Amino acid sequence: MLNFVVGIDLGGTLLRAALIDSEGYIHNKTSLATASKKGSQEIINQICKLTSIVSKSISKDQILGIGISSPGPLNSKKGLILTAPTLVGFKNIPLVKILEERLKLPVFLENDAIAAAIGEHRFGAGQGFKNLVYITVSTGIGGGVIIDGKVLYGFMGMAGHIGHMTIIRNGDKCSCGNQGCWEAYGSGAALTKRAKKYLDTGIKSMISNYSKIDGAAVFDSAKKGDKLALQIVFEESEILGLGITNLLHLYSPEIIILGGGVSNGFDLLIPGINYYIKNHAMLPFHNVKIKPSIHKDNSGLLGASIIVFNNNKSLL
Amino acid sequence: MLNFVVGIDLGGTLLRAALIDSEGYIHNKTSLATASKKGSQEIINQICKLTSIVSKSISKDQILGIGISSPGPLNSKKGLILTAPTLVGFKNIPLVKILEERLKLPVFLENDAIAAAIGEHRFGAGQGFKNLVYITVSTGIGGGVIIDGKVLYGFMGMAGHIGHMTIIRNGDKCSCGNQGCWEAYGSGAALTKRAKKYLDTGIKSMISNYSKIDGAAVFDSAKKGDKLALQIVFEESEILGLGITNLLHLYSPEIIILGGGVSNGFDLLIPGINYYIKNHAMLPFHNVKIKPSIHKDNSGLLGASIIVFNNNKSLL
Repeated sequence: MLNFVVGIDLGGTLLRAALIDSEGYIHNKTSLATASKKGSQEIINQICKLTSIVSKSISKDQILGIGISSPGPLNSKKGLILTAPTLVGFKNIPLVKILEERLKLPVFLENDAIAAAIGEHRFGAGQGFKNLVYITVSTGIGGGVIIDGKVLYGFMGMAGHIGHMTIIRNGDKCSCGNQGCWEAYGSGAALTKRAKKYLDTGIKSMISNYSKIDGAAVFDSAKKGDKLALQIVFEESEILGLGITNLLHLYSPEIIILGGGVSNGFDLLIPGINYYIKNHAMLPFHNVKIKPSIHKDNSGLLGASIIVFNNNKSLL
Repeated sequence: MLNFVVGIDLGGTLLRAALIDSEGYIHNKTSLATASKKGSQEIINQICKLTSIVSKSISKDQILGIGISSPGPLNSKKGLILTAPTLVGFKNIPLVKILEERLKLPVFLENDAIAAAIGEHRFGAGQGFKNLVYITVSTGIGGGVIIDGKVLYGFMGMAGHIGHMTIIRNGDKCSCGNQGCWEAYGSGAALTKRAKKYLDTGIKSMISNYSKIDGAAVFDSAKKGDKLALQIVFEESEILGLGITNLLHLYSPEIIILGGGVSNGFDLLIPGINYYIKNHAMLPFHNVKIKPSIHKDNSGLLGASIIVFNNNKSLL
């Protein structure tokens, strides 16, 4: 009998689910708009519904459990979501306990960036590497770190808040309250803000033809040779290169995996990132690989599922 | 029969040795000026001589081995010193193999900041904590990181190069070749340079009465209420606070341990460091302890000895 895990990605916009087998194949993917403003009860209902949809073709005793990838801060050991800024009413919610009672199945919860790091490590761009850093660059910048073959948790599971290292002293204000964070300069939101600022000066650019000014508009314009877009891409690659250079010195990974929306511009960004590293990192770090995530939006639910498969075994 | 380890601290200025027992007590301490310009052969002779001096009161079969704390870059697994900028002729020296042949004892080699982290973790300020970062602030800034109860090595053992994270984009040149590194702003050398720059402007300060302008002169003057010295101390505490804030977000330690020459000014620096953290770190990191190293200059040789005692057992 084949066993499966239901992987759930609890995003602020989309709630996504799939059936994962022990070899990492993704089956029966589905998603719906997260009821992010309706409180935790409604989202819990949605999770139960998606679980039943993706698993209807198999019998219940083939399901080993549910793995949930969720934004933090959360306590994965206690199965508790502490707060989730994008989900109204999610404050100190013992999600694991509630779902285990409803579904009568083991449930595991993990921070989305850590889950994605595990997913890419086992079945994606990070296969075969003992040391990797997964970076998601989207609205913010988050990270999941695997060093010496183990997920780096630190005290309270709070290690790997890579978006909030200061890279520019007394720099721009960040959403966290601090100034000069990597996230405040390198995130997708920061890139969009920079593009809008340039356009506000009256500079002519293809970017302004797009109905929505965002990373996708900038990358698309850059591909078509738009000068301003190319400049914004270069600036973004420098900022990403700087942050990655710091991560190389602090964690010494063999590979850096880029995920999140901004990684859709990977091919445009990578020359500038590599140039920055060659010019600024210590010599032993010059040849560290930088690759895009293979599973994209699925890295998180895949990683959360691996945690279920590995339950009672060593994690990695 | 009591067993001992000979702990060696291979410094660019002083070569220090002691006999360490399994409870971490330090016996028969001795030191001599490192023959840093005479090549590796002479230093190896010195290590053998110090080993025989500190162990003359015990029989040879009471010595479990030799633990050496050395500046890097080095390969602790292979027992190889790759280069040692402060020691002439130390390039690709298989120190462990050479000493094992000479002394007929097991020899272990470890990076000095990692050794110090292990020493403080087992028998010093870090006792009882699973997550700690040891920071040495002297000529440069180095680090040893223990997370989730294990030394963080990373690929090639290169994790924890904390002195070379960029904290100021396009900032001052660092000895590593990069710009804006923490070390370029926060090290003892940087503090001395800043003091000299201030004095060059003709500003009146007690600091200029000292025969040598250095960290000790600045701290001593600050203790006596000298205004310029107090300002330099405040600036130093801000820079240290900034770097430590980054380390909190990246590693999530429970305790930060400060060692190295600059930590002699710990009592003067700590209010500014704590103030910076409270103003800039995320809330969960505000109460992380920051303590001075307990074993000071002995943390490294103590840690290297612990590695010998733990040989064939899990390291920590």
